[in-house]
Amino acid sequence: MDSGSDTAHDSGVKRLRVALLGCGSVGSQVARLLHEQAGDLEARVGAPVELVGVAVRRLDAPREVDLPTELLTTDAEALVRRDDVDLVVEVIGGIEPARSLILAALEHGASVVTANKALLAEDGSTLFAAAEKADRDLYYEAAVAGAIPIIRPLRESLAGDRVTRVLGIVNGTTNFILDKMDTTGAGFTETLEEAQALGYAEADPTADIEGFDAAAKAAILASLAFHTRVTAADVHREGIVDISASDIAGARDMGCVVKLLAICELVEGDHGTAVSARVHPAMIPRSHPLASVREAYNAVFVESEAAGQLMFYGPGAGGAPTASAVLGDLVTAARNRLSRVRGVGESAYAQLPVLSMGETTTRYHVQIDVDDRTGVLAAVAQVFAEHEVSIQTVRQEGRGVDAQLVVVSHRASDAALAATVEALRAKEYVHDVSSVMRVEGESDQ
Amino acid sequence: MDSGSDTAHDSGVKRLRVALLGCGSVGSQVARLLHEQAGDLEARVGAPVELVGVAVRRLDAPREVDLPTELLTTDAEALVRRDDVDLVVEVIGGIEPARSLILAALEHGASVVTANKALLAEDGSTLFAAAEKADRDLYYEAAVAGAIPIIRPLRESLAGDRVTRVLGIVNGTTNFILDKMDTTGAGFTETLEEAQALGYAEADPTADIEGFDAAAKAAILASLAFHTRVTAADVHREGIVDISASDIAGARDMGCVVKLLAICELVEGDHGTAVSARVHPAMIPRSHPLASVREAYNAVFVESEAAGQLMFYGPGAGGAPTASAVLGDLVTAARNRLSRVRGVGESAYAQLPVLSMGETTTRYHVQIDVDDRTGVLAAVAQVFAEHEVSIQTVRQEGRGVDAQLVVVSHRASDAALAATVEALRAKEYVHDVSSVMRVEGESDQ
Repeated sequence: MDSGSDTAHDSGVKRLRVALLGCGSVGSQVARLLHEQAGDLEARVGAPVELVGVAVRRLDAPREVDLPTELLTTDAEALVRRDDVDLVVEVIGGIEPARSLILAALEHGASVVTANKALLAEDGSTLFAAAEKADRDLYYEAAVAGAIPIIRPLRESLAGDRVTRVLGIVNGTTNFILDKMDTTGAGFTETLEEAQALGYAEADPTADIEGFDAAAKAAILASLAFHTRVTAADVHREGIVDISASDIAGARDMGCVVKLLAICELVEGDHGTAVSARVHPAMIPRSHPLASVREAYNAVFVESEAAGQLMFYGPGAGGAPTASAVLGDLVTAARNRLSRVRGVGESAYAQLPVLSMGETTTRYHVQIDVDDRTGVLAAVAQVFAEHEVSIQTVRQEGRGVDAQLVVVSHRASDAALAATVEALRAKEYVHDVSSVMRVEGESDQ
Repeated sequence: MDSGSDTAHDSGVKRLRVALLGCGSVGSQVARLLHEQAGDLEARVGAPVELVGVAVRRLDAPREVDLPTELLTTDAEALVRRDDVDLVVEVIGGIEPARSLILAALEHGASVVTANKALLAEDGSTLFAAAEKADRDLYYEAAVAGAIPIIRPLRESLAGDRVTRVLGIVNGTTNFILDKMDTTGAGFTETLEEAQALGYAEADPTADIEGFDAAAKAAILASLAFHTRVTAADVHREGIVDISASDIAGARDMGCVVKLLAICELVEGDHGTAVSARVHPAMIPRSHPLASVREAYNAVFVESEAAGQLMFYGPGAGGAPTASAVLGDLVTAARNRLSRVRGVGESAYAQLPVLSMGETTTRYHVQIDVDDRTGVLAAVAQVFAEHEVSIQTVRQEGRGVDAQLVVVSHRASDAALAATVEALRAKEYVHDVSSVMRVEGESDQ
């Protein structure tokens, strides 16, 4: 450490040099924090942490942060291959060129911090293998639920426990929309427009409202929680575009609220232990801790064998919150570089099978518009029984043309529940199955 | 690693050997998890983790877990000095002999995991110095808020951010009592008796209801959050014994709930940055995330410059939840032993001054029984003004002998607020200052 040399790959590392890929809303906040917190970062890492290059698409684009011109480059390929770079922060997003850049950075001896949920959910195993081969860290706290520490708690704090379920509100846009629908009684389309006007939803909101974003995060959470490789393709995905004001009102009548949940479960079945990972709207009781997660906030609720029920809550997006998560990882990766060690890598030792949605057990809340005559309740109950779906409660509402049955089932396979609804739709005494919603977060599972 | 030797202090560590000090409700759960999760622990650590000794007070005491007799010993001193022990778990509690045992364990080359909040809050610096000197880990996630991961997030996840405030419900007994008082309208004494009958409060509840337990945790949280050595003696402490049904009702009228809070703040003042750490009952708005923390649950609410508002929620006590936190630390310490590295140690580099309670700024909610005549409101307002305390709202309630003023102040020094209340009590038009409560968790700070 006393030698005059301080380049990254020499034996005496004295400064940690950071290359930043991308300088949008997250990247510019990462650059700002590296500058403003320089003194604290040095004290916490044990050496100065210095930004040495920023890869951008256009040199003259407007930015939230003032950067010395000499740091900027459009040649990300060359930046990640620089010999003096110890740490690479990737906040470009998307599959390519992010993947190639991360792989090149690891190969060239840099540790990597990324916020790229899509890439991790699609091809995490390639990245993790490259990190292991290179003996470098690959951290990604910012990829799930923004600033909320959830990756590290799952990987480290709960490493001595057995996680059995993860329920997450991991997409702020959809939570904002569902929360607004709940408080105003408005429909989906007008609420989406309001969210767009307020900047909570993008002009093309597909990734959020169709559940793609949440499904990527579910894959990452399930992989970590169950030590099993789960990709986005393994995650059953339903968005919120079909949620109506009537669905929300029906939930309210049940003392529930509708949330888009990422649900990762350990399932003990006849053929041993398996994993289920899915994203869909679900009713949860208003007394559940997740029910009070309002507006665009995120939260992840974790159930484990010994710890019981934990919840992690905070802002799920935004430049500064996401940058906070990136910097936390960067400090750990920097300390590890200084100590010449690698932190805990990913593990998929359990290699549990991933269930299809049909095999997953869920509960249904079904509103059925029916003929107002004697025997209909019994006939509907019979349809459930024929599909071996046990009914928890059935409630009759309205009279005449407004007659309605509201059925809540016990847990059954999703396939059996779907078949039950299909069969109900074919009955002449059923006018319409007006709402079908899964129920989560109750003790009767 | 190929040599036949597998003792702890040889070069080829193949098994991690654990000594457990204490086998009460937490210790017996630690022993159970080490046994039941052995396969998963081995996969996650990279080597088997083996319990080699358990120090107990009495060999024949009844225990929650069956342990092989040969593991038990009453000689804790000898156990922590055994050459084949890599990791020591201390769950005895109290200052001595816990401190001597931990110091001996570190000196003899073992890493230590402890749940001992009292010891850490009183003499953490001695322990941390010993760990650094020995180049071993000293972890203590279980010391604050049971199973909730809060130590690791503060130390690592938020290492690139600037924490400005920590508000914690960190004592389950007092939260259970205050929650019951809020839902039933009952007084403190009868609710304490109910809590004792239900096992939520101990026969001697002093440590909980007088705030000693919460103050120890506040010292630990403030030290970590602000990189400054804060001891239990630095923490201003008020318990909940004087909270009346009328205080709770007054909070309800304000849309608030009363919680015993551990409050750690970074304070920017005329003389630079300082730290404030205190434990006292406070009113928080029912819309605040901490307000929904019911029964004996704990939660820690963290505000930071970049991440914004985060909350960590879960069971704050209990054998299995606390054991989950111990095991998480144990896995990290075990991995570090295998890699021959030491994890992040404690830092107090900031060494900020700790403010006295009088210098701390707070807000007061004051109920004043007054004469029902013109001019009293103005006179009361004048008393606040004379002490340079700005009034946010004042509300007149009742008539005649029930006439009451409810004043909520803006932030002012606690000393000025206390002096204001003192002066009010001396006025002939004031019959009584019937409730004085600090207000936290609102945007106007």
